[in-house]
Amino acid sequence: MNILLINPNTSDSVSDLIRAEAERSAAQGTQIEVITAPFGVAYIETRFEALIGAYAAAEVAAKHHERFDAVIVAAFGDPGLAGLREALPCPVTGLTEAALASASLLGQRFSIVAISQRIRAWYRETVQHIGLDGRLASIRGLDEPLADIGNVQGNQGERLIALAERCVDEDGADVIVLAGAPLAGLARCLRGRLPVPVVDGVSSAVRHVESLIALQPGKAVRGSFAPPPVKANQGLSPALERLLASRRHV
Amino acid sequence: MNILLINPNTSDSVSDLIRAEAERSAAQGTQIEVITAPFGVAYIETRFEALIGAYAAAEVAAKHHERFDAVIVAAFGDPGLAGLREALPCPVTGLTEAALASASLLGQRFSIVAISQRIRAWYRETVQHIGLDGRLASIRGLDEPLADIGNVQGNQGERLIALAERCVDEDGADVIVLAGAPLAGLARCLRGRLPVPVVDGVSSAVRHVESLIALQPGKAVRGSFAPPPVKANQGLSPALERLLASRRHV
Amino acid sequence: MNILLINPNTSDSVSDLIRAEAERSAAQGTQIEVITAPFGVAYIETRFEALIGAYAAAEVAAKHHERFDAVIVAAFGDPGLAGLREALPCPVTGLTEAALASASLLGQRFSIVAISQRIRAWYRETVQHIGLDGRLASIRGLDEPLADIGNVQGNQGERLIALAERCVDEDGADVIVLAGAPLAGLARCLRGRLPVPVVDGVSSAVRHVESLIALQPGKAVRGSFAPPPVKANQGLSPALERLLASRRHV
Amino acid sequence: MNILLINPNTSDSVSDLIRAEAERSAAQGTQIEVITAPFGVAYIETRFEALIGAYAAAEVAAKHHERFDAVIVAAFGDPGLAGLREALPCPVTGLTEAALASASLLGQRFSIVAISQRIRAWYRETVQHIGLDGRLASIRGLDEPLADIGNVQGNQGERLIALAERCVDEDGADVIVLAGAPLAGLARCLRGRLPVPVVDGVSSAVRHVESLIALQPGKAVRGSFAPPPVKANQGLSPALERLLASRRHV
Amino acid sequence: MNILLINPNTSDSVSDLIRAEAERSAAQGTQIEVITAPFGVAYIETRFEALIGAYAAAEVAAKHHERFDAVIVAAFGDPGLAGLREALPCPVTGLTEAALASASLLGQRFSIVAISQRIRAWYRETVQHIGLDGRLASIRGLDEPLADIGNVQGNQGERLIALAERCVDEDGADVIVLAGAPLAGLARCLRGRLPVPVVDGVSSAVRHVESLIALQPGKAVRGSFAPPPVKANQGLSPALERLLASRRHV
Amino acid sequence: MNILLINPNTSDSVSDLIRAEAERSAAQGTQIEVITAPFGVAYIETRFEALIGAYAAAEVAAKHHERFDAVIVAAFGDPGLAGLREALPCPVTGLTEAALASASLLGQRFSIVAISQRIRAWYRETVQHIGLDGRLASIRGLDEPLADIGNVQGNQGERLIALAERCVDEDGADVIVLAGAPLAGLARCLRGRLPVPVVDGVSSAVRHVESLIALQPGKAVRGSFAPPPVKANQGLSPALERLLASRRHV
Repeated sequence: MNILLINPNTSDSVSDLIRAEAERSAAQGTQIEVITAPFGVAYIETRFEALIGAYAAAEVAAKHHERFDAVIVAAFGDPGLAGLREALPCPVTGLTEAALASASLLGQRFSIVAISQRIRAWYRETVQHIGLDGRLASIRGLDEPLADIGNVQGNQGERLIALAERCVDEDGADVIVLAGAPLAGLARCLRGRLPVPVVDGVSSAVRHVESLIALQPGKAVRGSFAPPPVKANQGLSPALERLLASRRHV
Repeated sequence: MNILLINPNTSDSVSDLIRAEAERSAAQGTQIEVITAPFGVAYIETRFEALIGAYAAAEVAAKHHERFDAVIVAAFGDPGLAGLREALPCPVTGLTEAALASASLLGQRFSIVAISQRIRAWYRETVQHIGLDGRLASIRGLDEPLADIGNVQGNQGERLIALAERCVDEDGADVIVLAGAPLAGLARCLRGRLPVPVVDGVSSAVRHVESLIALQPGKAVRGSFAPPPVKANQGLSPALERLLASRRHV
Repeated sequence: MNILLINPNTSDSVSDLIRAEAERSAAQGTQIEVITAPFGVAYIETRFEALIGAYAAAEVAAKHHERFDAVIVAAFGDPGLAGLREALPCPVTGLTEAALASASLLGQRFSIVAISQRIRAWYRETVQHIGLDGRLASIRGLDEPLADIGNVQGNQGERLIALAERCVDEDGADVIVLAGAPLAGLARCLRGRLPVPVVDGVSSAVRHVESLIALQPGKAVRGSFAPPPVKANQGLSPALERLLASRRHV
Repeated sequence: MNILLINPNTSDSVSDLIRAEAERSAAQGTQIEVITAPFGVAYIETRFEALIGAYAAAEVAAKHHERFDAVIVAAFGDPGLAGLREALPCPVTGLTEAALASASLLGQRFSIVAISQRIRAWYRETVQHIGLDGRLASIRGLDEPLADIGNVQGNQGERLIALAERCVDEDGADVIVLAGAPLAGLARCLRGRLPVPVVDGVSSAVRHVESLIALQPGKAVRGSFAPPPVKANQGLSPALERLLASRRHV
Repeated sequence: MNILLINPNTSDSVSDLIRAEAERSAAQGTQIEVITAPFGVAYIETRFEALIGAYAAAEVAAKHHERFDAVIVAAFGDPGLAGLREALPCPVTGLTEAALASASLLGQRFSIVAISQRIRAWYRETVQHIGLDGRLASIRGLDEPLADIGNVQGNQGERLIALAERCVDEDGADVIVLAGAPLAGLARCLRGRLPVPVVDGVSSAVRHVESLIALQPGKAVRGSFAPPPVKANQGLSPALERLLASRRHV
Repeated sequence: MNILLINPNTSDSVSDLIRAEAERSAAQGTQIEVITAPFGVAYIETRFEALIGAYAAAEVAAKHHERFDAVIVAAFGDPGLAGLREALPCPVTGLTEAALASASLLGQRFSIVAISQRIRAWYRETVQHIGLDGRLASIRGLDEPLADIGNVQGNQGERLIALAERCVDEDGADVIVLAGAPLAGLARCLRGRLPVPVVDGVSSAVRHVESLIALQPGKAVRGSFAPPPVKANQGLSPALERLLASRRHV
């Protein structure tokens, strides 16, 4: 299996964290490739930045998806995910969706621990879109601006643990979701130190797309996730144009 | 007042419909300008097309907003609206949000009448994001593919009325929302022929941004609609880069 | 345009605040009239007081509506609004509904800042009836009983600002709604001092009914907001009797 | 025990039906009194009529409650119930609230069978206010206007049964609620003829207030159902004025 | 009337508390019998313990129900209630369901005061299943492990009152539900000391099944609460086998 | 990896279907064992039957879990799942939960196609407990009683496809969930014949527990899924007693 993880942030250091955790998580024989967004912002925290990241992810996916069996939008908040699920012929997921699927198998209520205050509104809306807000115990974020997005783990590990403890004891969380690509791999380190199960977006996404590839559920040719209808378009990159032209349900 | 309506579809014929209805709706002295997306698809019906339209709308807004007192994303489904509300210094709305604000002042439950079956899923998710799904009686759409996106009104008027009648009598709608920029202005023609109030996105959006300009509620400098934090970015158009750099809350 | 604002409280000093803000907010050429409830309580804070205020508003509306293009129930909590929307031939709104329509165009989540603790339960139920409780961040109220209902602004301005700050920073509000007719006009003074947009019921209601008059959406002749069916009644004031007899959809 | 049922409709024939069913349902030793609204409409079907009925119910309650151990607002839709619960020193309920309390003890989902189409919107909002809309399978109503409000049972019995059958088989109802005071007592006749339990507002309300009198849960002196704060009022009937002045938590 | 209360806990001391409160609450002429679960745990606090308690309750009910007019599952959390409602020919309720039915007649929002922290998750899910989570203000529990399950009242009375006060003042509760069979009867003692109405599961359940017996709503022969279809079974106790074989809707 | 699937139905023919699909779905090296409930009913369709199945599943799990790395409750409706998740030291899932986790990665809205009408109520409540009812498009079931529970696929295949088509075209489903252990493996056969992705509980559950074993999220030692507190118990099987005594977080 070949899996593409698209980092919709432009930070190569974050892509490195994603790649390392994806490779640690993948089944034997799975090939991992991470491609960093060619344009956008260093780290997506807001709806506007997500709008840009979604388009960057679409460009990367359009250009490269044919070499892969599955695509992962490797940012929490899942920018562009629903659109890509319509357009691509292979399974697609995102870090939030995948982490929540894992969390939903481990307990009733989950909390999200994030790397900034600002990012919480965007995450809450993502959870609402997924429809699991009834099981969301809380979203807690670090208070201080991030000095170095590629090194948040070393700097902030103890604070993230303290936030997770409060999610369990004050908010009633049964599961902790460590959110955001810059935290990729941290869940693995913290397991023994948290009082409840902890899940991570990158490892969850890799495992779940492997499962979808194995389960072969088929792609939609009717309904709202069928490919978009063929129609006139203009001004798009050759890759996007090719993707829109390649509708598969004639 | 100067109001910019961005058509995230690439159809100039739809931009003409939008412009005509916006001018009919505007208060005396309001100047209307409609700019068509420089790239994208002829008519947005799906999440993937909306992703593209959102980015196109962001490009247009970034480039032109400084000349305007308010910006309207002139497609039902409101592609890019939440992001633009963060980034722009002026009031911003979209056709769905504005039409629903009107509908919410006229009755308890509303139905949306749309120009295709496929488009309904995207509209339902838009209403859910707005949080008014508890007041949504139904979404009904025309069954046949559209022959001519700029002439849907003449071709399909009677069928749209029949759909609206069913929304009232079978689904319990108190208000009809005629959805989609290609229907701009149609509500005006149908009023006497429907048994309940009927609202339109373009006219609602124009009136509501005029109100917001007059009410001067202020812009967010904290919270989730403050401008995105300044951070590194790359590969963006000069206009987007300028917009991201112009954060106003130092 | 002629707009009637009905103050369902019996306080003339509150009617003066309402009138002043309505006139400041209205478009040029709009005529404002405020009529104080002829019976009821000085300031509505509870469901029982709202029941009385609703009937008083209905009496005033029945007697005077024919001279007006639109009617506003000028108390937060909107006593009698849904009933009046059925019965009157013109657009009708209330302060909560109108303020929430404004807030919904300015951010995702809003908080209500109110003038007493007791009033919060009634406001929460009003927001729930409107269907926007999913976007309600919090309702916060002043702790102390009001000494002088017509002078709450001068006495309590700083405390209201402090409450609004907590709504933003602790509750995640994107917009502040200053609630209650005794606060009419205060939003206008506080704008520069709050970190997020602030909206007011009176000014929102005036602008929104002006918009509804301009949009001419039509009145319901079927569905749940058609006028009540003609039937026997007794013991009502001549005005109410005349209103019930004047059904317009024969 | 002495129980007052207030008929907020002005129809004495409906009061007779209510009285008969209340007496059949009451425990031995319970005294039933039914008082018809001195003003209002013959039969409440809309929000505006309910507004009038609420005030009429308040007048009756204010004047007579002191002789009773409990008060029942004997119209489905419960006009004025929440307000009266604040103001009166004794237990208060209404027909919808009481019927739904019974239904909630008999199955998971219930349907309401009503005597007109128009009345359904008001009932749905009543169920939503009670918070049990998640368990509402459907509301079905008779299609034709009622010829004789006091004789709906004889005329329409078979049609009501047919509606109830559809609620079970098509809508998934576990319990049928026969709604509206004009149907008082009908549930008793239909039991053997329906495939699921059937409940009635009048009998449920009588039994439940008897239970509340026996359970002696106490009255609120804090929180949102404490009596309204003492404040200036004007233009009210002596009975209402006396009720407002009699706050019990000094 | 003969009413069976099944204690799904194995604690005879709790059965004594249940019996005493049931007898105090019952109408004259009602006979009360309490049967303690023959197997299970001393006090149910978790989902796994509830699973066991549900089966124990089913065994007791199957064996003894024929002598009774109604059955009460006398543990908060209502283990096995929905299943028993399908299977038994008589009315059945549980302590949570019954207490919430009482609370719903006394105010809009209620809080649950419980005897441990751990038990809160199970209670919250019970309230969600009942569909009244929109009216749940909070669930608060005692902090310390229980020394003596049959004597929690004497030990913890003051702490329970303090928790209830916080529910009213901080969480907005209109009604307090004292939860858990070990608190049976405590509501009766606390009434004068709490600022809002207080309800108890045992007394509520006894009164409500008395009402259901009197109202004779009928049993389901179609829909989801009809008896389970006759089918092969094995390995069950004679009582359960007899109950499953006794389907009444041929 | 060793995975235990517990069939809470007593039908060995269904256990055979479960085993076959589990073995087809498992990764190389995974060992599958299916154990049929030693007591209960042939096929669970109702809440009462699920109560029995939950206890049977608990007995099997208590007796055998120590030999396994994960446990699957192999009935749709997931009888006993939440309780077992508290009690067992290894990952646990059920067919509904696992199928919905798969469906949530493939589209926005899903429909469940089931093998009887009666079973739909129980499934709906299961989906509500999982919290994904906002994404449930519909539940449709076969109309006729099942002649042979182990051979439903051959008999009813075409009818199940027809039901699935209606879910897509009339109800707006993006994904079909084939529900019920007797349909295990059918999804695999139908893929090419349905217009949207189709998922199955058994294969989903096997893949997802393999993922959970690989991800090693850790077990709860605090919160609501920590093992039940140690306390007195009586009358339980040695296996259950041992399981309750083996709490791991001292």
